[in-house]
Amino acid sequence: MLPPPIRYPRDPTTPVSHLPFSPSVVVGGLVFVSGQASVDPTGTIVADSFEGEFRRSIDNLARILAAAGSDLRHVVQTRNYVRDAADLPLYNKLYAEAFAAPYPARTTIVDCLPRDLRYEIEAVAVVCYPPLGCVAG
Amino acid sequence: MLPPPIRYPRDPTTPVSHLPFSPSVVVGGLVFVSGQASVDPTGTIVADSFEGEFRRSIDNLARILAAAGSDLRHVVQTRNYVRDAADLPLYNKLYAEAFAAPYPARTTIVDCLPRDLRYEIEAVAVVCYPPLGCVAG
Amino acid sequence: MLPPPIRYPRDPTTPVSHLPFSPSVVVGGLVFVSGQASVDPTGTIVADSFEGEFRRSIDNLARILAAAGSDLRHVVQTRNYVRDAADLPLYNKLYAEAFAAPYPARTTIVDCLPRDLRYEIEAVAVVCYPPLGCVAG
Repeated sequence: MLPPPIRYPRDPTTPVSHLPFSPSVVVGGLVFVSGQASVDPTGTIVADSFEGEFRRSIDNLARILAAAGSDLRHVVQTRNYVRDAADLPLYNKLYAEAFAAPYPARTTIVDCLPRDLRYEIEAVAVVCYPPLGCVAG
Repeated sequence: MLPPPIRYPRDPTTPVSHLPFSPSVVVGGLVFVSGQASVDPTGTIVADSFEGEFRRSIDNLARILAAAGSDLRHVVQTRNYVRDAADLPLYNKLYAEAFAAPYPARTTIVDCLPRDLRYEIEAVAVVCYPPLGCVAG
Repeated sequence: MLPPPIRYPRDPTTPVSHLPFSPSVVVGGLVFVSGQASVDPTGTIVADSFEGEFRRSIDNLARILAAAGSDLRHVVQTRNYVRDAADLPLYNKLYAEAFAAPYPARTTIVDCLPRDLRYEIEAVAVVCYPPLGCVAG
């Protein structure tokens, strides 16, 4: 049996980066998304308030999921890096608005981001097939 | 081809939380479990010794796996967050007792938990089908 | 339907450890690799420069992937722990040489390793079947 093919989706709307990683990698029915932060379409960090950085990160995640044939509703797991623990209440409020119930599995840790980032999110999602529509849980 | 269905197992014995995450999410043959810490059935943090927090976290993980149709023997990967590096020897001793050989793949990092938690564990497991029994390795 | 069998590949060339984890666990077409650091074949930490620790970690990862029937070209996701943010530029340079485009999905965090390690890498890869050769994306 051959291994399942690996896909590296790219799309003009997803941020590029000069760093050695793919925005996402698809294998089998899953897409693994690289840690997404507050960067512009050229991959340059955009320093902002926690809310601004959070929204830009989620927007980048959504674009990358779309390029891979998935969306925020098909995320099964997220790992979240919040630089300052003081931002956790705001993080939980914004997160509840960005995703919808039933929510993905989630882990959140703090104090482990470089000083130029306030937030980063990494995700695993199910790939859906747009011609047939995406089915939710 | 439709994406595989996503399940969000819930059970009266698993801790609830007012925060925006599911205890676990099942897709294909895998269950992704949210980071588990020392919380009671209402999701309230129970401050305790490292050993107490570790045992409560593993107990919560075991309940959530059971609700998803899996168990500790079918965990394939864990990611462990130990707040204080000084607790690593005790962590390794307790971990070796909580799991059984052959052990899951594991990563352990430190200094990245909020101050009100000493330990947290996140897991990926294989879903087993209780009517047929679970097969090990 | 029975759960997919879980395999625990071991090989004389992969580092051993007295700690409670398997070097890798294979389920379905995926291999989950434990966090790899600068350790010798007996699992003893080898303190070194960042570059030395990085190369030893990647070498250990490559050996473990080979024992599981995979290789660095079939890694789909890595999670990287760099102790000191000051080492990030060197990390990116070495990482771009260790892997090849198209790169895996990647996340990198800092300040969360015990003081006796400068680097650690955790990976998920696709298992390939050597009798038939490995197919790249």
